[in-house]
Amino acid sequence: MGGGSYEVTEARRAVIVIMDGVGDRPIKELGWRTPLQVARKPNLDLIADLGITGLYDPIAPGVRPGTDTGHLAIFGYDPIKYYPGRGPLEAVGTGLELRPGDVALRANLATVKEVGNELVVIDRRAGRIRGKDAEELVKYLASSIREVDGVEVLIAHGTEHRVSIVLRGEGISPKITDTDPGTAKEGRPVAEAKPLDSSDEARRTASIVNRIVRMSYELLKNHPVNRERIRRGLLPANIVITRGAGSVPKDLRPFKEYHGVSAYLVCEEDTVLGIGKILGIEGEVPPGATGNLDTNIESILKSALKALDKGYEVVFIHVKGPDIAGHDRNWWGKVEIIEKIDWLVGELLKSIDLSSDLIALVADHSTPCYARDHTGDPVPIAIAGLGVRRDEVRYYDEVSCARGALGRIRGVDFLNTILDLMGRRKKWGA
Amino acid sequence: MGGGSYEVTEARRAVIVIMDGVGDRPIKELGWRTPLQVARKPNLDLIADLGITGLYDPIAPGVRPGTDTGHLAIFGYDPIKYYPGRGPLEAVGTGLELRPGDVALRANLATVKEVGNELVVIDRRAGRIRGKDAEELVKYLASSIREVDGVEVLIAHGTEHRVSIVLRGEGISPKITDTDPGTAKEGRPVAEAKPLDSSDEARRTASIVNRIVRMSYELLKNHPVNRERIRRGLLPANIVITRGAGSVPKDLRPFKEYHGVSAYLVCEEDTVLGIGKILGIEGEVPPGATGNLDTNIESILKSALKALDKGYEVVFIHVKGPDIAGHDRNWWGKVEIIEKIDWLVGELLKSIDLSSDLIALVADHSTPCYARDHTGDPVPIAIAGLGVRRDEVRYYDEVSCARGALGRIRGVDFLNTILDLMGRRKKWGA
Repeated sequence: MGGGSYEVTEARRAVIVIMDGVGDRPIKELGWRTPLQVARKPNLDLIADLGITGLYDPIAPGVRPGTDTGHLAIFGYDPIKYYPGRGPLEAVGTGLELRPGDVALRANLATVKEVGNELVVIDRRAGRIRGKDAEELVKYLASSIREVDGVEVLIAHGTEHRVSIVLRGEGISPKITDTDPGTAKEGRPVAEAKPLDSSDEARRTASIVNRIVRMSYELLKNHPVNRERIRRGLLPANIVITRGAGSVPKDLRPFKEYHGVSAYLVCEEDTVLGIGKILGIEGEVPPGATGNLDTNIESILKSALKALDKGYEVVFIHVKGPDIAGHDRNWWGKVEIIEKIDWLVGELLKSIDLSSDLIALVADHSTPCYARDHTGDPVPIAIAGLGVRRDEVRYYDEVSCARGALGRIRGVDFLNTILDLMGRRKKWGA
Repeated sequence: MGGGSYEVTEARRAVIVIMDGVGDRPIKELGWRTPLQVARKPNLDLIADLGITGLYDPIAPGVRPGTDTGHLAIFGYDPIKYYPGRGPLEAVGTGLELRPGDVALRANLATVKEVGNELVVIDRRAGRIRGKDAEELVKYLASSIREVDGVEVLIAHGTEHRVSIVLRGEGISPKITDTDPGTAKEGRPVAEAKPLDSSDEARRTASIVNRIVRMSYELLKNHPVNRERIRRGLLPANIVITRGAGSVPKDLRPFKEYHGVSAYLVCEEDTVLGIGKILGIEGEVPPGATGNLDTNIESILKSALKALDKGYEVVFIHVKGPDIAGHDRNWWGKVEIIEKIDWLVGELLKSIDLSSDLIALVADHSTPCYARDHTGDPVPIAIAGLGVRRDEVRYYDEVSCARGALGRIRGVDFLNTILDLMGRRKKWGA
């Protein structure tokens, strides 16, 4: 491929447009049609017309994906095998770099009171502490707790009361319970982390986490920031309590190594960017990309074209708006952002060559306006370009694409199909 | 079934025509159609018209099957669970009989030189040794090395420098590394086989293989054949080096026992015949079956009809030509062999009765002419006969069949569907 005297016979590169939550259900106010069936979208339809279409379940039919699990699947990582849980995803969001094998926990700055031998949680969020107070306390913890029982400890501040804790070293496991006694349970004591299985790793990790929680109390209870908060009538943030332990699977290989192609991710939010980071996909949230209906779609286009110019073989473009409109029960807003995406796709089609490239439309899940949340409805997909079998479907929507020649596929099938069209799948067997 | 007063209510037998590599992608020179869309094939289309159609992924969407893994799936054995690897398949090709639990390795007659304590590989193929020299040396090895550490050793000559080694006994494992230092590495010492996991079985097997390699050197280095070769200025074949250890899974049950029906395999190449052998499916390569476009299709028909006459319940007919044409970028050749297969199917339809029998069309993978190799594109399937739901699809090709009532199925689904129509699947649950 690419050799001077050889003809191009398999696709060289692929642009994959991910419309977050674009799938929908019939809406009475739209004449029992979906936003995709109502929107004017000649370019999305052109891809359906020129190419192959189908339905896609990022996880499985009727299973509601999160943005995180849905994107893992689109990126070709089986979410059942590779979903690291919230702890690692939030840790990456705070800027911590995660490595395979790391265990990460979400944590809160909280307020406790000594009652007998116990630490009782008065406020799980220390009065929603924020700004400099929170930053200073977390910084103090991070510099004071660097290692416990031979395991490296990284602590970083998220937003408001939110904290991420990462454990790095041999012999640890995410299979432990929370020390946070839970949302509806203020007035209950800090729980003890317990192993969730009988492994040495889980027992050891639970003990490390219990020590970190206890150390945080010792370090914070008389900290000047807290003394000043009490003086001002605010709740002191005198402990961190943990939940959502997860780990980056040890056998997770970076995207380029795992799939054999380079990839770039233009996206509209930190969650998606964070998943990309864990997978070793370079990316950015372009300037002006708000993740909402008012997003600067030209800016998204510009970033995507730049990535293509730089020679990335797969460029993922994530647009968040359809999901927001779904959560907001805003069907006309959803129609509007679909039409914006249609413009984006029209511009992309001017910059790629379907006789050697691929363009694909996909979504991480449906967010029907009536459901106001993610659902397990499949999403329509379409792929056009070199090598693609052309079916008779002419429109990109939930019902038209169901008759397409891709049939109904799931999980890693979508990216595998793209990579196969790019000649990047090794034969299994002989 | 067959009882005098009972009507035939489920299909009695099935003829399954496997068109190796028949799936394709749009070809500019065919007006962006595939060979299946261009070929004149009234009989294949009749099966689609009378029956049910769909798409089939022998492994999974976008995953490129080999002829071996693809056929395992068609034969109803999950390739992920049952693929034995190359070692066993080549061993069967040399005529060795394999049993569940056997570990088989590919090996080469090679040339080594003693350098200090090491045996350095001068030529991995002993100058592509062949004929009597190779036969005699391998025969000598086979009769000299019959047992190592309580494990039975079978050694057989393949073609040229190729040798198969089979280990049979308790407590062995295929999880070992190669002693062959690899293709691009002449001038490197013979490697030591090492266990790939921490099991006793792998450790023991590695040690057995190392002993066989060392024994082969001691047996061959002064063998008269080699002394004569050196005298004639040829490289001596003074060692065997091994690679590709694999095993026939212990729980592999023969086709008839596993599926409850008798089967016969008419096929065009040793690889497919070898897979059949491992699965306990009787079969043959008919006289005149070349595996190419010039194959004697009448001879293939005759063998299939004979198998039906003998009362086999499932008859698999494998035609290799479409795959060869795909590898050769020969789209008109692919059209031609499809039309030959259409004739074959027309003749078969005269000999079976669709009111009590089944006929099915399938392929082990796609071999698109542009890709010149197997790809992960699904293949069209069609089944006609008693009990089959009739859909509206009238043509047997990659796009038409996508609208069929079978949907898109994978792996063992295809054979299970056939066996279910034959009333040979037990209820799971009650």
